[in-house]
Amino acid sequence: MPKNIIVIGSGAAGMTAASTAKKADPQAKVIVFTEDEHIAYSPCVIPWAIEGKTGWNDIIMHDAAFYKKERDIEVFTKTSVTAVDGEKKTVTAGDKTYPYDSLVIATGGTVFIPPIEGKDLKNVFVVRTINDGKAIQEALKTSKTVVIGGAGVIGLEMALALKDMGKDVIVIEMMDQVIPRIADKDMADPIQKYLEDKGIKFIMKAPIQAVKGKDKVEGVTAAGNDYACDMVIFATGVRANLTIPKMLELDIGQLGAVAVAPTMQPYKRGRLVNDVYLAGDLVQCQSAVMAGPTMSQLGSTAVRQGIVAGANAAGENRITGPVASPWVSVIGDMHIAGTGLSLGLASWYGVKTVEGKATGLTRARYYPGGKPLTVKIIADAMTHRIIGAQIIAGEDATGRINWLTSAIIDGVTAEDFAFRSENAYCPPTSMVRDVVLMAVDDLCSRF
Amino acid sequence: MPKNIIVIGSGAAGMTAASTAKKADPQAKVIVFTEDEHIAYSPCVIPWAIEGKTGWNDIIMHDAAFYKKERDIEVFTKTSVTAVDGEKKTVTAGDKTYPYDSLVIATGGTVFIPPIEGKDLKNVFVVRTINDGKAIQEALKTSKTVVIGGAGVIGLEMALALKDMGKDVIVIEMMDQVIPRIADKDMADPIQKYLEDKGIKFIMKAPIQAVKGKDKVEGVTAAGNDYACDMVIFATGVRANLTIPKMLELDIGQLGAVAVAPTMQPYKRGRLVNDVYLAGDLVQCQSAVMAGPTMSQLGSTAVRQGIVAGANAAGENRITGPVASPWVSVIGDMHIAGTGLSLGLASWYGVKTVEGKATGLTRARYYPGGKPLTVKIIADAMTHRIIGAQIIAGEDATGRINWLTSAIIDGVTAEDFAFRSENAYCPPTSMVRDVVLMAVDDLCSRF
Repeated sequence: MPKNIIVIGSGAAGMTAASTAKKADPQAKVIVFTEDEHIAYSPCVIPWAIEGKTGWNDIIMHDAAFYKKERDIEVFTKTSVTAVDGEKKTVTAGDKTYPYDSLVIATGGTVFIPPIEGKDLKNVFVVRTINDGKAIQEALKTSKTVVIGGAGVIGLEMALALKDMGKDVIVIEMMDQVIPRIADKDMADPIQKYLEDKGIKFIMKAPIQAVKGKDKVEGVTAAGNDYACDMVIFATGVRANLTIPKMLELDIGQLGAVAVAPTMQPYKRGRLVNDVYLAGDLVQCQSAVMAGPTMSQLGSTAVRQGIVAGANAAGENRITGPVASPWVSVIGDMHIAGTGLSLGLASWYGVKTVEGKATGLTRARYYPGGKPLTVKIIADAMTHRIIGAQIIAGEDATGRINWLTSAIIDGVTAEDFAFRSENAYCPPTSMVRDVVLMAVDDLCSRF
Repeated sequence: MPKNIIVIGSGAAGMTAASTAKKADPQAKVIVFTEDEHIAYSPCVIPWAIEGKTGWNDIIMHDAAFYKKERDIEVFTKTSVTAVDGEKKTVTAGDKTYPYDSLVIATGGTVFIPPIEGKDLKNVFVVRTINDGKAIQEALKTSKTVVIGGAGVIGLEMALALKDMGKDVIVIEMMDQVIPRIADKDMADPIQKYLEDKGIKFIMKAPIQAVKGKDKVEGVTAAGNDYACDMVIFATGVRANLTIPKMLELDIGQLGAVAVAPTMQPYKRGRLVNDVYLAGDLVQCQSAVMAGPTMSQLGSTAVRQGIVAGANAAGENRITGPVASPWVSVIGDMHIAGTGLSLGLASWYGVKTVEGKATGLTRARYYPGGKPLTVKIIADAMTHRIIGAQIIAGEDATGRINWLTSAIIDGVTAEDFAFRSENAYCPPTSMVRDVVLMAVDDLCSRF
């Protein structure tokens, strides 16, 4: 009998799990259920698609017909799963009940909107699905001023996209810096300044208290002040979507997401659940930096977990590693990237830190086109291990942050990194001693 | 009494050593002797400077007056060291004898020119100093066809620079591939094809046997055939410059360069020499991949060694790590990079290898401007450790090769790298699963 593998969710985690499962067990019958109309696309690209830098159809890697024809995977779009029975091992979707041998839950997260007055008004949006993006694009035709709630990377990418489209943009953030939590203030402030110089207005330390308007958005109230606008986009973070996990009574971890074993299996009342696997934004991960759970909620993490969940759903026996969660955002001419713990997260874990920092260029000083590059590296003051890093650069932050991530996941001390590391050098692509190594030299001098 | 520190050589190793020594011991009297007219520049940039992409004065980081004024370091340019007495601890230069407490030898390497007929004719050049570059630039005014001897990275960068200047260019290489020794044929061939498509002619498996001409170059003979040309540029590799080490009777290692301890001290008849330190192209290094010596001869290695040599010359007690020698070259629109062992070097060490390879893009598939990216990773078939990697890409090879270098120096197995590695993702700077990780997935499937 071929194995029935059901995947719920069609994002990076779900589609990766489905493809991996089918590849691992070509005889298996693999079915995907998703509420979304579109599948296999990257929500990260929506700000650029709204601006028109890429087309909506371009960002969809494959459609359901492709999966059916090329991979023999059946995808049911616009289909809600209404029940999951963990005893009988069935999934009910679209008034039909399907048996499963293995179930993968990859229903991701939903954008958190604060429970405030006016949050359901017309022209209040989030940035999560292609249909969200298309709706924003449509509403922009009749909107002049847009408030972005939340100055995380998606909020800032959206802010710049809309500014580039000629809109007046106000970013309202409850913390005292942009990209709070994952970036440190000294690294985030230059990004805020860059966007302010482009004419984007920032209201800091000001949670949005209300959205005002009769039929549609007319303004917001934040920190007691009113700001007129035609549209509000909430980019206030993603919460794990727990609908399906709750149907199975899976254990929810202390971070409000589903706790999973390295096999991506969940727990129920403390016991591992067989034949169920999770992947993506709805799980909490093991941190590669500190003992304990952390949230990752990155597309790259979703793929990594989707591979393990899918392989195990097909009968393999794989585990996924802990996360340092490297991230990068391109905001106009600025690349900002980070990995491991920010100072804020380190303090939350009670870690005493030492920081090193260096500024240079992305190319040799004399080579045309070099861009500014600042690298900051954070170490644990006790163990000297590198626990975090952040980069602001005009280009090429991504490879450098992956490089620093490997130092974090390998548990390398600052001194050992300084001692052993080497950098490739060519005048058009780096200084003879890369700024990453200059930063770690600075760090080592500060213990 | 302030310490007398003498540095011989003014390249990346020498000037780094001088600055580091002065910083470590601000009271010390630091003197640099160099035969060169210019100091503190990167020979790597000469092909671009010849083409005019950057000016000759721009590539000189600092001149002697700067070192005197800003760092209190005395630099004697165009000054040959004629004697070094290791017993009396003196250096004789420009008819004067100077005492030293510590001596740093950083006289680099010289381009190897085969001992063939016509090698001293007018219009035979090497690419090593600014004056070499200026001489080539001058001679190009009356030259139409240029033969480049040697298809290493400097040879190829020169070839393209000259082609871009409108010259007819013939590259003559004794091996059957470009960038032999450090790149594998499957990674090097696309570079050769790219340059052939630009109209550069390649004569492979053909050592230059003679340079022909009466007063100046008129042609070369290679593999029995004659090729007419106006200029010959030898880019046939660099040999350690052993003039000063021989004055001190220092031990020469099996690779024809000076053997040094991790402190950068040389040996004399098997015993460590006190108060003498070396750095840069004239030493052989400890390999980070295999037990035993290797040659690095990279600007980034010179800086790394110069820091240790200079610090120790000033009385510190530092050691330098082994080398994986990551390198990168930008040839027009192509970036080619490598680290650790190529297949050729692995075979020379007797290592049985397994290879993984993947091709993708430098950005998300749908994001405009993505460039092709091929990553190849080589593992030791016995230990599964990653021992080498090479990248061809339209952009952003450098950060990726540094990332893979850290896997090599940390002794990580392919499976562990696949298990633990993460990549930062943003549509304008990478695919959701970076091609580096796709290549290691492929590698793991091949054991």
